[in-house]
Amino acid sequence: MRYLDSINSPEDLKKLNYDKLNVLCSEIRDELIHSVSKTGGHLASNLGVVELTVALHKVFDSSKDRIVFDVGHQCYTHKMLTGRRDKMDTLRQYGGISGFPKPTESLHDAFVAGHASTSISAALGMARARTLKGDSYHVIAIIGDGALTGGMAYEALNDAGQSRERIIVLLNDNEMSIQHNVGGVERQLGRLRLKPQYTKLKDNFRRFTAKTPGGKYLYRFVHRAKLMAKSLVIHGSMFEDMGFTYLGPVDGHDLKSLCSLFEIAKGYAGPVLIHLTTKKGKGYKYSEEHPDLYHGVSKFDVDSGQAISKSPKSFSDVFGEELLKIADTNSKICAITAAMQYGTGLDGFASKYPERFFDVGIAEEHAVTMAAGMAAGGMIPVFAVYSTFLQRAYDMLIHDAALSNEHIVFAVDRAGIVGEDGETHQGIFDAAFLAQIPNIKILCPSSYEELRIMLNKAIQMNSPVAVRYPRGGEGIYHGSSTGLSEVLKVGKDITLVSYGILINETIRAAELLENDGVESEVVKLNTLSPLDLQGIILSVRKTGAIIVAEECIAEGSAGQRLFAGLAEKGISAKARLLNIGNRFVPHGTVSQLWKLCGIDAGSIYKTALEVLSDEGKIETRSASL
Amino acid sequence: MRYLDSINSPEDLKKLNYDKLNVLCSEIRDELIHSVSKTGGHLASNLGVVELTVALHKVFDSSKDRIVFDVGHQCYTHKMLTGRRDKMDTLRQYGGISGFPKPTESLHDAFVAGHASTSISAALGMARARTLKGDSYHVIAIIGDGALTGGMAYEALNDAGQSRERIIVLLNDNEMSIQHNVGGVERQLGRLRLKPQYTKLKDNFRRFTAKTPGGKYLYRFVHRAKLMAKSLVIHGSMFEDMGFTYLGPVDGHDLKSLCSLFEIAKGYAGPVLIHLTTKKGKGYKYSEEHPDLYHGVSKFDVDSGQAISKSPKSFSDVFGEELLKIADTNSKICAITAAMQYGTGLDGFASKYPERFFDVGIAEEHAVTMAAGMAAGGMIPVFAVYSTFLQRAYDMLIHDAALSNEHIVFAVDRAGIVGEDGETHQGIFDAAFLAQIPNIKILCPSSYEELRIMLNKAIQMNSPVAVRYPRGGEGIYHGSSTGLSEVLKVGKDITLVSYGILINETIRAAELLENDGVESEVVKLNTLSPLDLQGIILSVRKTGAIIVAEECIAEGSAGQRLFAGLAEKGISAKARLLNIGNRFVPHGTVSQLWKLCGIDAGSIYKTALEVLSDEGKIETRSASL
Repeated sequence: MRYLDSINSPEDLKKLNYDKLNVLCSEIRDELIHSVSKTGGHLASNLGVVELTVALHKVFDSSKDRIVFDVGHQCYTHKMLTGRRDKMDTLRQYGGISGFPKPTESLHDAFVAGHASTSISAALGMARARTLKGDSYHVIAIIGDGALTGGMAYEALNDAGQSRERIIVLLNDNEMSIQHNVGGVERQLGRLRLKPQYTKLKDNFRRFTAKTPGGKYLYRFVHRAKLMAKSLVIHGSMFEDMGFTYLGPVDGHDLKSLCSLFEIAKGYAGPVLIHLTTKKGKGYKYSEEHPDLYHGVSKFDVDSGQAISKSPKSFSDVFGEELLKIADTNSKICAITAAMQYGTGLDGFASKYPERFFDVGIAEEHAVTMAAGMAAGGMIPVFAVYSTFLQRAYDMLIHDAALSNEHIVFAVDRAGIVGEDGETHQGIFDAAFLAQIPNIKILCPSSYEELRIMLNKAIQMNSPVAVRYPRGGEGIYHGSSTGLSEVLKVGKDITLVSYGILINETIRAAELLENDGVESEVVKLNTLSPLDLQGIILSVRKTGAIIVAEECIAEGSAGQRLFAGLAEKGISAKARLLNIGNRFVPHGTVSQLWKLCGIDAGSIYKTALEVLSDEGKIETRSASL
Repeated sequence: MRYLDSINSPEDLKKLNYDKLNVLCSEIRDELIHSVSKTGGHLASNLGVVELTVALHKVFDSSKDRIVFDVGHQCYTHKMLTGRRDKMDTLRQYGGISGFPKPTESLHDAFVAGHASTSISAALGMARARTLKGDSYHVIAIIGDGALTGGMAYEALNDAGQSRERIIVLLNDNEMSIQHNVGGVERQLGRLRLKPQYTKLKDNFRRFTAKTPGGKYLYRFVHRAKLMAKSLVIHGSMFEDMGFTYLGPVDGHDLKSLCSLFEIAKGYAGPVLIHLTTKKGKGYKYSEEHPDLYHGVSKFDVDSGQAISKSPKSFSDVFGEELLKIADTNSKICAITAAMQYGTGLDGFASKYPERFFDVGIAEEHAVTMAAGMAAGGMIPVFAVYSTFLQRAYDMLIHDAALSNEHIVFAVDRAGIVGEDGETHQGIFDAAFLAQIPNIKILCPSSYEELRIMLNKAIQMNSPVAVRYPRGGEGIYHGSSTGLSEVLKVGKDITLVSYGILINETIRAAELLENDGVESEVVKLNTLSPLDLQGIILSVRKTGAIIVAEECIAEGSAGQRLFAGLAEKGISAKARLLNIGNRFVPHGTVSQLWKLCGIDAGSIYKTALEVLSDEGKIETRSASL
């Protein structure tokens, strides 16, 4: 029997000695590789934190102590060890367990994670609440060196450093975020990594104090008095300057050292930062060699490391190719990414035009304002960013991009439902929040060809403009529409409006209606700002009924805006909105989630029939409000 | 004649020697004090940067070099020296010059500013554009130690430090932001300030090299080779670690030293950070003693330092008093501010309950997620924040507050038009962006009594909830309405809907209509999420006409959402939205700006008459789309 089979909760793990725990780590790695090879998910980051996670559960009690993961996609071992091992085959699947920490899933998950750089803030809040309530549990934030490039982490370090709160920050330094880190802090970390004499000295001292009666107190005293050799060998690390006691760097795969260091950290009265170095992808040949390629993976063959189905062309690929083509003839084009070079399709650009390519780290706020500065300086910056991460820069869009009407192109990738990454990652807000901001134009291609056309159009504009497109590939619609909107199918009974990739569902719904003898008119929006109210009015005057289907939160959606426009124009029609509603959307396949939200072809079809059979029974519907 | 009278552009200033420039500085200070005493505005910060600004214009050419202010309210001297001295009496007034840098106002204003921590990002973008275009001008960012607590500044330092771009960052360290700084970085700066031996050594070296032929090159060489005594005396400042060459600290009121240092910085090939120490409020007895009280001032008497009209009670005051009262009996209440203790009315709370009061620095992102952590830990955090600054935390509201439905109370101050601070500060987005986010309730009191009631209600809820209220005081409405909405006046001809402080304009409009024999029904919304669609339907069924007036951007406004609701329910009515539209709103008094935006009593009145006289000439209106 494997040790892993004996672990039903972290309590079982605590009974094992270090030798057995090391075997357990191998077993976990093996299971991780095989499990993720079947479900897809984040692999390299999880392989990097196996010992770290086991050590955390050996030393702390995650049912009381609060372990706060940053970004969170490295929580698989944690999930396996906290009663969810038998559900690992449902990972990221509809109805299955999430690929991220989720407090509603387990009391061992302390806090929601998904976006970067939040863990220290959340942990500090918990630590403060604990202290105010007179409780005594530990709070631990685990943050990668990548997430440390996000400004929010710095705001939190700054506050935590002077807080005097008992809080432990584990810096999981794998010398890269998704690809490689950028920025000055990386240099600082590099410098720290190169101080073996310090590590060794500290290690010896730790061992000595750990073995000595009262050694823990001596250790603490020595630290506090700042008499330790540290100041002779290493000085002024950023973290010490901020008020943290800095421990490390320590080998993040050395279980025994980790546990010893965690025990020491438990004894501290104030904020402690432990600097761990780990190897992303550790323990699997292919992911060790190419941790970036094994960051997020689809199903793959364990022996060969090859993906089982080759990922087809995507909107991201088309964007990357087209931008590169444009850059060939326009030397003003610059590309910006916030640590997502690979995901946004900018690899080609980065290779060919390194001097015009800027990876700013996980720093969307800075990216937008830096782009505004570039635009003010006469260049044409293109910031490729996932919809969900652009939320980070909402204020900079208003204050730095839109207010001075700078010509920045926002290539908003992963707009709409993204699928398996779930509720923290769905791109369901941008269609609403971008529309609120004056001066920003929003283009929404539905096909590769439209993405090409609209990207070129955006480059020619002279205001901030977002081109938003979904994760994955195009559907049955391959058109190249260019106006504000286009009537894809003429009909007299009901107007069906949609945009982006969801136009495919709308076309299918129209076909279903056709079979029932209903002649629907399909109108595809090509822009969300401005909205083609006039075009919609033309159609609605004819049909007298309208449905707007979209992958957007209800409030501020294009449908609401259109309906308000119809009301102001005095046009009455049977009208129905189909959108995400006022909720978060869990993980699953995109089509499962479209169905869940009632925006798939079947739902559009069904709603159309309802609207048409409805004879304006206002009383009834109003009562059910 | 004063030297100041001879300065028509920065060119004139360049001709003066240091002795004359020092006299000029006194003249500027004198004029600043008298000018701001008449217009109101930001005083202390401007008095602190007189020499700094004069030195910048002595050494650099602001018509070509790009001087990027952070926050920007310290730009008055800059405005006086760049051809706008004769307009200083129009400062912050409708049609007059802005209290912040504004590129459309002058080519000497390089970039929009208003929110904190943006300057290094913008400057780096400009520097990169310059280099790519083969230009050679200088780019200078001026950032205070307060703005340096914002994470975005750190993201930008991180990127700039490794960029190798020629960029100069001036750290204007006045040892306080608006009140005093918080956080670990302040500690680091304090440590740097205490290195006189280093400063002196560096100073001597600088003087030596400045006087020696080729000294500039020697100086540069020495710096690059890192052979300078620096490394013996001071080591590893955060900025050096990030890749900057660090110069300073230098006395920011020593004109000659400043100019010499700027000249040296001009010669550097990479990123340079100059650390200046200045005294906020310098040169005016009262502001030196109480720089916080003289941060932003109304008109005051120069001799006594007393405000000419005592500022009346405000919503912020009422919030602060009521929260303190609640905290007396509820030990779970914590108050959080992002460097706005005074402005948000939290002074009393901070004094009485320092252990439950948290000033996190200019760090709204961290504030929201820290609050989420506190809520998860069982406390009830109340984050008091200006509407315009809450934009910074849009993603954290979604990802950390709403997704796990944490009970955080957001006291959203300065919601709606704020007046003289102008376009960077208007609180015109929150009513739309908060409404988009699932789980967040939005309460909108119109009177002090309602603010008290709703704050207590918010404390009792168990989800994230925003209580939003305006800058300044209450109007003619003093009610205490508590439902989702309330009919303030019954009428049969037209429904007038509004909320917040604008209800006063709506009541006045109803009175004007009454005089004309029009019986309007006035409905006041008390919540924006949820919206009382049912209540509005009841009224509209009766009147058949509706106007929604609000201080909110058009897209995603409550009016749009209500009209969409009416359309879905099949209710047709003559409908008109009165809101900010799709634009930014300049500076002026609140009532001037209400009028400008067409949401004042007169506009509501006029629109009501139009709507009622309109017989549904759809063709005509549609054509004018």
